[in-house]
Amino acid sequence: MYMQNPVFIPGPTNMPEVLRRAADMPTLDHRSPRFAEILHPALAGVRKVIKGASSEVFVFPSTGTGGWETAITNTLSPGDTVLAARFGMFSHRWIDMCRRHGLNVELVEEAWGNALPIEAYEARLRADRQHRIKAVLATHNETATGVRSDIAAVRRALDAANHPAMLFVDGVSSIASMDFRMDEWGVDIAVTGSQKGFMLPVGLAIVACSPRAMDVMADAKLPRTFFDIADMRARYADGAYPYTPSVGLLNGLKLATEMLLTEGLDNVFARHRRIAEGVRAAARAWAMPLCATRPEIASDTVTAVMTPQGFDATRLVAHASTKYDVAFGVGLGEVSGKLFRIGHLGSLSDVMALSGIATAEMAMADLGLPITLGSGVAAAQEHYRSTQAAEARLAA
Amino acid sequence: MYMQNPVFIPGPTNMPEVLRRAADMPTLDHRSPRFAEILHPALAGVRKVIKGASSEVFVFPSTGTGGWETAITNTLSPGDTVLAARFGMFSHRWIDMCRRHGLNVELVEEAWGNALPIEAYEARLRADRQHRIKAVLATHNETATGVRSDIAAVRRALDAANHPAMLFVDGVSSIASMDFRMDEWGVDIAVTGSQKGFMLPVGLAIVACSPRAMDVMADAKLPRTFFDIADMRARYADGAYPYTPSVGLLNGLKLATEMLLTEGLDNVFARHRRIAEGVRAAARAWAMPLCATRPEIASDTVTAVMTPQGFDATRLVAHASTKYDVAFGVGLGEVSGKLFRIGHLGSLSDVMALSGIATAEMAMADLGLPITLGSGVAAAQEHYRSTQAAEARLAA
Amino acid sequence: MYMQNPVFIPGPTNMPEVLRRAADMPTLDHRSPRFAEILHPALAGVRKVIKGASSEVFVFPSTGTGGWETAITNTLSPGDTVLAARFGMFSHRWIDMCRRHGLNVELVEEAWGNALPIEAYEARLRADRQHRIKAVLATHNETATGVRSDIAAVRRALDAANHPAMLFVDGVSSIASMDFRMDEWGVDIAVTGSQKGFMLPVGLAIVACSPRAMDVMADAKLPRTFFDIADMRARYADGAYPYTPSVGLLNGLKLATEMLLTEGLDNVFARHRRIAEGVRAAARAWAMPLCATRPEIASDTVTAVMTPQGFDATRLVAHASTKYDVAFGVGLGEVSGKLFRIGHLGSLSDVMALSGIATAEMAMADLGLPITLGSGVAAAQEHYRSTQAAEARLAA
Amino acid sequence: MYMQNPVFIPGPTNMPEVLRRAADMPTLDHRSPRFAEILHPALAGVRKVIKGASSEVFVFPSTGTGGWETAITNTLSPGDTVLAARFGMFSHRWIDMCRRHGLNVELVEEAWGNALPIEAYEARLRADRQHRIKAVLATHNETATGVRSDIAAVRRALDAANHPAMLFVDGVSSIASMDFRMDEWGVDIAVTGSQKGFMLPVGLAIVACSPRAMDVMADAKLPRTFFDIADMRARYADGAYPYTPSVGLLNGLKLATEMLLTEGLDNVFARHRRIAEGVRAAARAWAMPLCATRPEIASDTVTAVMTPQGFDATRLVAHASTKYDVAFGVGLGEVSGKLFRIGHLGSLSDVMALSGIATAEMAMADLGLPITLGSGVAAAQEHYRSTQAAEARLAA
Repeated sequence: MYMQNPVFIPGPTNMPEVLRRAADMPTLDHRSPRFAEILHPALAGVRKVIKGASSEVFVFPSTGTGGWETAITNTLSPGDTVLAARFGMFSHRWIDMCRRHGLNVELVEEAWGNALPIEAYEARLRADRQHRIKAVLATHNETATGVRSDIAAVRRALDAANHPAMLFVDGVSSIASMDFRMDEWGVDIAVTGSQKGFMLPVGLAIVACSPRAMDVMADAKLPRTFFDIADMRARYADGAYPYTPSVGLLNGLKLATEMLLTEGLDNVFARHRRIAEGVRAAARAWAMPLCATRPEIASDTVTAVMTPQGFDATRLVAHASTKYDVAFGVGLGEVSGKLFRIGHLGSLSDVMALSGIATAEMAMADLGLPITLGSGVAAAQEHYRSTQAAEARLAA
Repeated sequence: MYMQNPVFIPGPTNMPEVLRRAADMPTLDHRSPRFAEILHPALAGVRKVIKGASSEVFVFPSTGTGGWETAITNTLSPGDTVLAARFGMFSHRWIDMCRRHGLNVELVEEAWGNALPIEAYEARLRADRQHRIKAVLATHNETATGVRSDIAAVRRALDAANHPAMLFVDGVSSIASMDFRMDEWGVDIAVTGSQKGFMLPVGLAIVACSPRAMDVMADAKLPRTFFDIADMRARYADGAYPYTPSVGLLNGLKLATEMLLTEGLDNVFARHRRIAEGVRAAARAWAMPLCATRPEIASDTVTAVMTPQGFDATRLVAHASTKYDVAFGVGLGEVSGKLFRIGHLGSLSDVMALSGIATAEMAMADLGLPITLGSGVAAAQEHYRSTQAAEARLAA
Repeated sequence: MYMQNPVFIPGPTNMPEVLRRAADMPTLDHRSPRFAEILHPALAGVRKVIKGASSEVFVFPSTGTGGWETAITNTLSPGDTVLAARFGMFSHRWIDMCRRHGLNVELVEEAWGNALPIEAYEARLRADRQHRIKAVLATHNETATGVRSDIAAVRRALDAANHPAMLFVDGVSSIASMDFRMDEWGVDIAVTGSQKGFMLPVGLAIVACSPRAMDVMADAKLPRTFFDIADMRARYADGAYPYTPSVGLLNGLKLATEMLLTEGLDNVFARHRRIAEGVRAAARAWAMPLCATRPEIASDTVTAVMTPQGFDATRLVAHASTKYDVAFGVGLGEVSGKLFRIGHLGSLSDVMALSGIATAEMAMADLGLPITLGSGVAAAQEHYRSTQAAEARLAA
Repeated sequence: MYMQNPVFIPGPTNMPEVLRRAADMPTLDHRSPRFAEILHPALAGVRKVIKGASSEVFVFPSTGTGGWETAITNTLSPGDTVLAARFGMFSHRWIDMCRRHGLNVELVEEAWGNALPIEAYEARLRADRQHRIKAVLATHNETATGVRSDIAAVRRALDAANHPAMLFVDGVSSIASMDFRMDEWGVDIAVTGSQKGFMLPVGLAIVACSPRAMDVMADAKLPRTFFDIADMRARYADGAYPYTPSVGLLNGLKLATEMLLTEGLDNVFARHRRIAEGVRAAARAWAMPLCATRPEIASDTVTAVMTPQGFDATRLVAHASTKYDVAFGVGLGEVSGKLFRIGHLGSLSDVMALSGIATAEMAMADLGLPITLGSGVAAAQEHYRSTQAAEARLAA
């Protein structure tokens, strides 16, 4: 098991060695002043990456799921209502969490492969005259279906309905890879993790809060201690933590944000789009539709490719792993067996992407799918060679 | 900032390079069968280290504090009563968490520096005829005061009172460094983290549950999702996680348990005791009392040294850090300013311990304490040279 | 500069992380007994890899070039004659070294792209009635032209001519990747380095000597100290070195040989052949000839692809590096500008090889060569998917 | 074998993690332009560290011994005479090398423990009216005896004798730790390695040449290829090497020089002196003389401590290694068994030095030497606490 091939799961991503090393620190006393020199730049860096100058950022030794829990337990009380749409496995799980924490979920069901249903959201908000809905949940990028939703439009729906609900966004597989505008979109809480666009190991829940989200916390009655933002905030003032922090991962986060900002966020997003477009060109060459029902909602971080009816796409993923030692993502929940996913976020070059496309082709041919070897590769090659690599620009 | 000196905080500890490397893995698909080859041996290894063959072990991407929250939220319901003693900062914090989660705490105050008050516990349990007390909390090693408590005696108290309450033990700074007997002591939940006796980076909450603790979970009404054991257990069966696991740290945990078991738990405990005895000999040579009020309760993982009245021990810690780049622990809470702590758990040799003792002496002399340079070192040297190093045995 | 793409130069190769870590050791006292526990298994491992049970192996902190110098200075005297063929840049350089050390070179010129001229060798040996020729030089794998020569045939030529000359073989880019039979072929000195088939960083010259080579050393008059084998041998007996050894690289060499032998040498060679055949299939699909003039002499570690007349292949290499951050090898010496080289030795998977082939196609298309994108990839895919990956076998 | 204790051998030294990581690079194509971005700054950095602005620096994949061979083979011809003094194992070995390469050594024997005999040198030079002596060899720091010699005085002797011989200096255990002035002292060739003051792994021979040394090379008749400076120089102009370079170690050398120059050479030298003075204070407290016969010639990088007559100091080193896992240096050659050596160059703090001193005390006590435990530690503590740590200055 040499693990020399890149992974093509939609996170955890391939990690640049420099970030692995930043995260793999010798023990530093987290009560010493040196810790603040790691913590504060990391938080400031995240604020820039999410374009949330007015926000406060909190980082927990946890994962994106812990970030969701942080969002709801710090702002809501048992019996509160949230508006949410289920249109993929990750939106499904967030809804499930809300219910388990005693929240009432105003649920909008949407076909998996579609984006967040803005009109339905607006209708529900308009109908909620008493403003029972305290928060609107929005999954920016549904990792299960490879679908990007329009968060700005959710904000517009809220404004159009003149509704005071807060806007909570799951940006786990979008932030740091796709454009995210905390302040401009009026996001109240944004959640992500360390192991996606920040290209780090798993282990950090990153939660950004608007001033308004900060304001409501005192009244939130859901119990919380580990994920309590007030405790965290109180200690941050001293450059400290309410318990032992993940110093190494925070050091990695500091460097990751520096790297992303040095590259330039627009360049980072363009780089992800370019890689994604090559993968989508391959899928077109294979004549296989995406799960994303419209081109304009296709995600730039993960592509979910629908396989022909009667074919078990999960076998494809297992086969690629066993025979070629390459990891793709399986279909989850409603789309289980119907699609496989090619993750292309984080640290990935066009050259690496081509190896993933080529492997997918071999695996499909092995399992009898009517694929022309090299066809998807050629389509992606054409795209990559006709566009300027971000890496080349970066090195220039 | 080369960070070349060992740290002498009571966790995170100095880490063996081999464990840092095990934890710093390239990305592995956590949905592949390879993950189970990491997860299951890690869990089995922990069970052996805690002598809890009958227990089930769960590992969350979190910290020891998250482990406490896991313990209470999976087994208790709002309004439930727990019996707890406050005799140091960490027992204090666990009590605070219980209250914030709506539990009723039957509180026993004990002087900081004393061990867990077994007789008071037994009295409270006997008095609780209706068995309102659902769980008894016990801090095995109070990291703040350097005091080890007798968990077997807590079990005896429960049995003597014929009380059915569960026994929850904070083993954060004891497990894997001092003897811990999950099954024999009838512990229902034991909690620890990755960054102490397991010598790994921060980032894992490790929670072991007795069959009885597993049984009560279905009825526990405290809300939980991230820390839900039932979810975790369901996915473990498939070698998977309910969300993204910290694969690298789990890989480190697997290796850490292998290393500890290969060395032999008795050797591990003897090694910690030997190092600790050298540190205590140094304190005696300095004529400075320990915070631990009796020799037999002095911790083998951290020594809290009381400084003379009128001296601010926190200055000592700051001075050692600034001038010598060596980290000791400050006094916390009630003992703030009154003591400094020398952590000596995890990956530490006698030779490294001597450098910490020597540094403490320099810092004390610098700040005007009436110390004879070399006196503590000589006492520790005498102890170390007259006992056989575990390392030497290991290499033999 | 993230350096995330594999390299496709014929060494230094891509390195498995486990070998990088073995080579990156903390400082170990090379005068302690622990050093012998690294040195002796490393030497024994090399002997097995080269199938040279009767040989003695010596490792110098140097490179393959230093290994050549070791070979000649320890066995020859000024004015001695060696028989050598020039048929590529590396055979050329060895000849140049001999002359600079005052040796007389009986030179056979052979077209670059051909293998070592066995018949010419035999003729020269037969003609040398006085046995002036003390050593025959043979480059097993000409890295510059991608040509493998038949060392067994050289031995047969020596035997047919009944000539006592020693046989010195440059196995730098063959050993540990292609079959090498020190004893069976009657090789007297074999030379390689750490950074090719052993997949380690640069820094070791590895020299294996037959009993006969050992015997003649006392009479060899070329001056030597750093490369003196007698000094090295004398200290090896004590598990020591005549000067400071590269402990980390030796530790890496120990592990590399363990890995190769665990995989099985036949599997290692088959793996290299399988990867190479995919690359050669790609070249055929491109309708570009190899520099190797006959299929049966094509190297399994590097493929030299001739580009059309009038095209400067060096531009291709520069372009692939600049635009795609992928390193190929340029043509050297007589074949400069006429070919580019795809290295495929050491740590390389079929999936990685496909990314190199795909990149070469993009670069060729960019520079106007009449290439069908995906054509070479498809040919290689067909080969790879129809053959069983060694990795898969290994994991099974 | 955790290898967690510092080493106290006079090289290879303890390595800062940041330098180990710089040296442990993924494979970079050494024929790409990126290599020049490593090579040239590394060479320029060395020139600054040795204060040799007029010199040219060459780096070979080898060791200090290879550096000596480079010095003589590139500048001298068989039968040439060199003037050399034998006053320790390393000066002895260099002399031996000269003889094996056919040079005539004008030998001055000096007691081991004394410095280079300047007056004897001057006398021999004055007596050499025909200027047969082509080069004067000088060992700046005799690692075997812990003796620093006065290179400026050798230059004055040459000048006083009006003798044109070149001055070759072995700076292996002095350069980058003690002041070295290539230009001011008129040094013609200076030699060092990577594993001492540069705090890197073994593997580089670093050779600096004055313009005059460069001038004589064309006439030097000693055979050389691997160590040929003209080849190296020709390729450096293109940012390349005549063979495969140790890219990782060169990258480490680049960073090491940056770190040293950022700290400030005067600070680096003061840091070594401060650590050394603490070790010497310990030896005085033990009432054990140094091998260095006068205080002003005691080395700042290694202290050789004479043990009482009848005691086998080599046992002490073995015992410290076996029982405490701490490496000291043994006596070599004439002083074998009579002394042990405490190396204190490279990456070492006062705190680490104290652990070495404390360990030496334990080992001496164990073996029956009449030592007061803690006595040397106290003397060193007094020195360290009364002087300002370089680390503290650096962090300020």
